[in-house]
Amino acid sequence: MTQDTADRARGLVHQTMVFEDGITLDCGVHIRPLRVAYRTYGRLNEERSNAILICHALTGDQYVAETHPLTGKPGWWQLLVGPGRPVDTERFFVVCANVLGGCMGSTGPNTEMTDETGRGLGRPWGIDFPPVTIRDMVRAQLRLIDALGIGRLFSVIGGSMGGMQVLEWASLFPTRVFSAIPIATAAYHSAQNIAFHEIGRQAIHADPNFHGGRYWEHGVVPARGLAVARMTAHITYLSEEALTRKFGRRLRTGPMLTFSNDLFEVESYLQHQGSTFVRRFDANSYLTITRAMDYFDLAAEHGGSLAAAFRNSPVRFCVVSFSSDWLFPTAMSREIVRALNAAAANVSFVEIASDKGHDAFLLDEPDLFRTVSGFLHGAAERWR
Amino acid sequence: MTQDTADRARGLVHQTMVFEDGITLDCGVHIRPLRVAYRTYGRLNEERSNAILICHALTGDQYVAETHPLTGKPGWWQLLVGPGRPVDTERFFVVCANVLGGCMGSTGPNTEMTDETGRGLGRPWGIDFPPVTIRDMVRAQLRLIDALGIGRLFSVIGGSMGGMQVLEWASLFPTRVFSAIPIATAAYHSAQNIAFHEIGRQAIHADPNFHGGRYWEHGVVPARGLAVARMTAHITYLSEEALTRKFGRRLRTGPMLTFSNDLFEVESYLQHQGSTFVRRFDANSYLTITRAMDYFDLAAEHGGSLAAAFRNSPVRFCVVSFSSDWLFPTAMSREIVRALNAAAANVSFVEIASDKGHDAFLLDEPDLFRTVSGFLHGAAERWR
Repeated sequence: MTQDTADRARGLVHQTMVFEDGITLDCGVHIRPLRVAYRTYGRLNEERSNAILICHALTGDQYVAETHPLTGKPGWWQLLVGPGRPVDTERFFVVCANVLGGCMGSTGPNTEMTDETGRGLGRPWGIDFPPVTIRDMVRAQLRLIDALGIGRLFSVIGGSMGGMQVLEWASLFPTRVFSAIPIATAAYHSAQNIAFHEIGRQAIHADPNFHGGRYWEHGVVPARGLAVARMTAHITYLSEEALTRKFGRRLRTGPMLTFSNDLFEVESYLQHQGSTFVRRFDANSYLTITRAMDYFDLAAEHGGSLAAAFRNSPVRFCVVSFSSDWLFPTAMSREIVRALNAAAANVSFVEIASDKGHDAFLLDEPDLFRTVSGFLHGAAERWR
Repeated sequence: MTQDTADRARGLVHQTMVFEDGITLDCGVHIRPLRVAYRTYGRLNEERSNAILICHALTGDQYVAETHPLTGKPGWWQLLVGPGRPVDTERFFVVCANVLGGCMGSTGPNTEMTDETGRGLGRPWGIDFPPVTIRDMVRAQLRLIDALGIGRLFSVIGGSMGGMQVLEWASLFPTRVFSAIPIATAAYHSAQNIAFHEIGRQAIHADPNFHGGRYWEHGVVPARGLAVARMTAHITYLSEEALTRKFGRRLRTGPMLTFSNDLFEVESYLQHQGSTFVRRFDANSYLTITRAMDYFDLAAEHGGSLAAAFRNSPVRFCVVSFSSDWLFPTAMSREIVRALNAAAANVSFVEIASDKGHDAFLLDEPDLFRTVSGFLHGAAERWR
């Protein structure tokens, strides 16, 4: 394995681990090599008992607690992870990996396509990248955790799709996880969740610059389609209350309707969200990862019983939801908690009152910070 | 005025009234002539006391209670309107007009552009059609009602954008309306409502066949963009419960994930909804009408006071909402009811328990039918 391989496609250098033997995916395809881009914060202690894995969401990446190299913005969970933060990097060794199928250095649609022997074919995978599952993402992370010499993670933490990975970690590798904090997530993607993803995918496919997913051959990106996808998703991340408070019906163009180029502030905001997103994200990755979320159904992986996914689990769970999250509503977290109870697992559940919608897990939510830091402190006392 | 003018653009003959003097819009533009396509059902009685105006929603049209000439499907409100139905066409004279800006025969983006003298310019308005408001739509309907010799409407009924027109009718022309039934609607379009519309508009603009709104010059239609717009809107019409009951996570392609062309049923359904819609709807009309909804803010039209919109109103109101409607939630209907109470208007309010979402107003909802028929019977006894 080699580290610090350049991600030529973007002119960025990501810290990576490369596993030459590759990985066999749920779809049956074997990809080699497997590259996992990751970041670490803090130091692994001698007992190797202080490692925490952070799992990112659909459009997140490994830059969880530092300035993002492309956008120049703070790390996406810098409020939660860092020195003196609830996930205190002066105490914990924090690892975050770009998911398999992502576009920030891990093997995915924008990395070089390889044949069965691992030989590079001089073109990106693009639309030919095989479908991946949340389980595949977790298996790729396990390779990294093994390579880092971490026997058992003190905790695995993630929100939204990150929470799906947390659940999958606890289910697949219960002896490798001491505690787990799935936040604002679900044990399966609902019909409504799938429907919103499908809108985004259709918008990407409808963009003439998509070229059937081979846009790299034409030196273009399907920016407008990807922007519409992002805008759609973004609405689902915000509560009605948050949108109203932030924008209401205010016009960007003045206090009164003029019927000429009137633009409501919420429109202008969404357009901005869409256009900045396309600069840092790859459309084929978006298709791959939304598909992985749609496939996710932990009960179905265990004969239809969610409790069976956690049978005899030694993992300590802290399940967190937000009251105004309508994308992954509290009811979905309750389903997880019920299954954990049915499996006689160790679980605490917190619904945090917030009017910020699904996005709350990324925002300044003191109740979330208190919950995570309290749970980690309690768990540390029981580590053995 | 002439009737039964052919709508050349579609090869369909719509029943229309043409007002040669035209209409001055809220934006200041005067359009002439004004054409209003409409349908009537039942007979106007001698006292002219039995006329009911039905106002249609965003993608509806005048074919409320008969087979649709383009789709061959039943009228969009045939469950509510017809012989022996709650709005009984054996008793009432029912009128429904295609809205100004629509695409089923009324003046709109797909009708012939005219100059100030009313002379045809040999091309459709297309993207150059001026912005219209809900108030403009209602003023156009008033011309039709005048021409039909109806002094006072026994009732005005509509759901969603149709309900906005109902509110505007009662506010603008209180002496012309005896009773009003605004259903699943709001006195203003919220930030979230605007945001969802903006997604649809962006998808249309992103379609290469849109050609800056001049697609008719190229003999194409922006079908993919319009389909994405429709798909997005369609999700907002359905409750999470309705989507789950209808589709859940069922795959169209078989019982198990194969990772090759897997399609969830909800995706296939949305794709179907999108593709059938583009056959009967015009993209520029979609832009025009969604904009009219976004502009709608009845309180803002009255110095910020919704109650002022209904001051001294003689109209009898029956406000109806559905419990699982998250696009126009019950809270929005309550705001209308509070304003009507503050204006000392005559109002009854019903929240109907339904898990079908916003769509419930178009579906087989016995409680809605009982409410409408009961209210109309009660109102009839007080007509004077």
